[in-house]
Amino acid sequence: MQAPFETLTAFRNLLAQSPASDGDATRAAQHRNAQLTKPPAALGRLEDLAIWYAGWRGTGQPTITAPQVVIFAGNHGVCAQGVSAFPPEVTAQMVANFQHGGAAINQLCKVFGARMDVHALTLDVPTVDFTQAPAMTEEELIAALQTGWAAVDPQADLLVTGEMGIGNTTAAAAVAAAVLGGDAARWTGRGTGVDDAGLAQKIAVVARGLALHATSDPLMALRCLGGRELAAMAGAIAAARHYRIPVILDGFICCAAAAVLEKTHPGALDHAVAGHLSAEGAHQALLDALGKAPLLNLGLRLGEGSGAALAIAVLQGAVACHSGMATFAEAGVSDG
Amino acid sequence: MQAPFETLTAFRNLLAQSPASDGDATRAAQHRNAQLTKPPAALGRLEDLAIWYAGWRGTGQPTITAPQVVIFAGNHGVCAQGVSAFPPEVTAQMVANFQHGGAAINQLCKVFGARMDVHALTLDVPTVDFTQAPAMTEEELIAALQTGWAAVDPQADLLVTGEMGIGNTTAAAAVAAAVLGGDAARWTGRGTGVDDAGLAQKIAVVARGLALHATSDPLMALRCLGGRELAAMAGAIAAARHYRIPVILDGFICCAAAAVLEKTHPGALDHAVAGHLSAEGAHQALLDALGKAPLLNLGLRLGEGSGAALAIAVLQGAVACHSGMATFAEAGVSDG
Repeated sequence: MQAPFETLTAFRNLLAQSPASDGDATRAAQHRNAQLTKPPAALGRLEDLAIWYAGWRGTGQPTITAPQVVIFAGNHGVCAQGVSAFPPEVTAQMVANFQHGGAAINQLCKVFGARMDVHALTLDVPTVDFTQAPAMTEEELIAALQTGWAAVDPQADLLVTGEMGIGNTTAAAAVAAAVLGGDAARWTGRGTGVDDAGLAQKIAVVARGLALHATSDPLMALRCLGGRELAAMAGAIAAARHYRIPVILDGFICCAAAAVLEKTHPGALDHAVAGHLSAEGAHQALLDALGKAPLLNLGLRLGEGSGAALAIAVLQGAVACHSGMATFAEAGVSDG
Repeated sequence: MQAPFETLTAFRNLLAQSPASDGDATRAAQHRNAQLTKPPAALGRLEDLAIWYAGWRGTGQPTITAPQVVIFAGNHGVCAQGVSAFPPEVTAQMVANFQHGGAAINQLCKVFGARMDVHALTLDVPTVDFTQAPAMTEEELIAALQTGWAAVDPQADLLVTGEMGIGNTTAAAAVAAAVLGGDAARWTGRGTGVDDAGLAQKIAVVARGLALHATSDPLMALRCLGGRELAAMAGAIAAARHYRIPVILDGFICCAAAAVLEKTHPGALDHAVAGHLSAEGAHQALLDALGKAPLLNLGLRLGEGSGAALAIAVLQGAVACHSGMATFAEAGVSDG
């Protein structure tokens, strides 16, 4: 579906008009939950998840039948500063791997029955090295937001946004620092696995970017320091809100992109849960800033949407219990 | 498959002869893992799980196609001491709910493609109140161990043991205390939700049981303080080891039963992982005693095998990534 905005102002207006969760559906789900054949609260966070999901889907007894995973790939001029253990060619190579079904995210989508789409965002034209100039023009930012928005299937009932982009933990750290405050060291981690010298280099690069592009506007921070795949994730998460599709956030890069929305319009992520805590050092601080507790903590730091895709199963389990279980009355079970 | 033991001595001998993981398969899986299209260790615990699973299944590139969830139900004489918020009739009512597909575990098995079997263990003859006399005779203990063993499908490739039994957190606390040491208060929790007075009563009841049935033999502790569903879970977990079927342990009651095996024969649980951390207070201490880190921590305290069933998805994801991903060479991706 084509994105309904042509300017950043129009995108901001869409965020400001974000639809709310359905209070009637939430109350219906709470009422149902209290009648199910289990001790009160015995399913823990699964109960909260199911009720939250019901509210966004507008029904007290929802199902998950069409989860979608969308992966965006971008290349980063800042790779010229030696911030990654992998060469930039790997971005396109991994996109081919996604398309041929060989990556981790392909296997997870298959196991959990999710549709998977891959969007490579002009990989042959990397963003500008943000230590030299803004990473993107306003037109490039809008185009990436539009690509992200249009990538979301309005018929999906659960969305995961993943990414691939050599150098993008550096871009994400810079965006997180600009949007949430704090210095470069706080937000910069080892990414796919740089050593101590590599980490020091990344921190210095992020600090230079922050010094060059001081701004209090989150979307300007995304334009100057981010990348096309980060902007596309932000666009997709905003589109999901527009369609009332619940979102599972992935790791550090996804959450940095999501933070741009939350800081542009507080509450913009109310339709999103945190799928997992990544092993990327600053992810916990990012989740804290977003006020999201992760569903999983298994030490993943791959990106691709992999941690969030694994959490699809948690949502599926939560919603299946909520909507499929018998009530005490239906089952003839004494409720204590 | 009929259990290959008629006496406790024969059961102990089977534990002592527990087969080991396949070293060649483990090494083949480690070798494969190092070649997959991802940065080293980027899938975190999923990588360890896949390699561990490969070792037990005896192949470097395994699949999960036949997970089995077995639920055992038992009634407890100790309910006469007022240890549960629910009446004992609920055990049979919930068994009927399992059989009709209305419980949480039914929904989870459906979502994750697991076969589910329910075994009600002479619900009309509860165990003896352990504050008065041993809960079971030796014959009853052996019969329950045999039922558990025979319940395991030798063709299954992943096993979850669940339970239902009003009063069984009290029995499990007594078994845990007897087997692992520490006083009644350390191991006794709120179960399905007793209040402060109920908790104090449970602790007093467990303490009386421990005073009456002092023993250093874990299987005797299981007989005197446990219950048929705990014994059946122990039998099933032992059978899984015999068949080299990996096991996902559930919450407090399952882990108390499993601890009997580990303390009878150290290493008896090497084929098992902890599916989740339950909200039942002493589960963390029990997992610590077993040396198992839980895969999930979502505040569940339902039993039925529900937390472990949810963790089936984590294993499925881990094994799917391991066995389905392309290698760097296959995908033509530069490996850094």
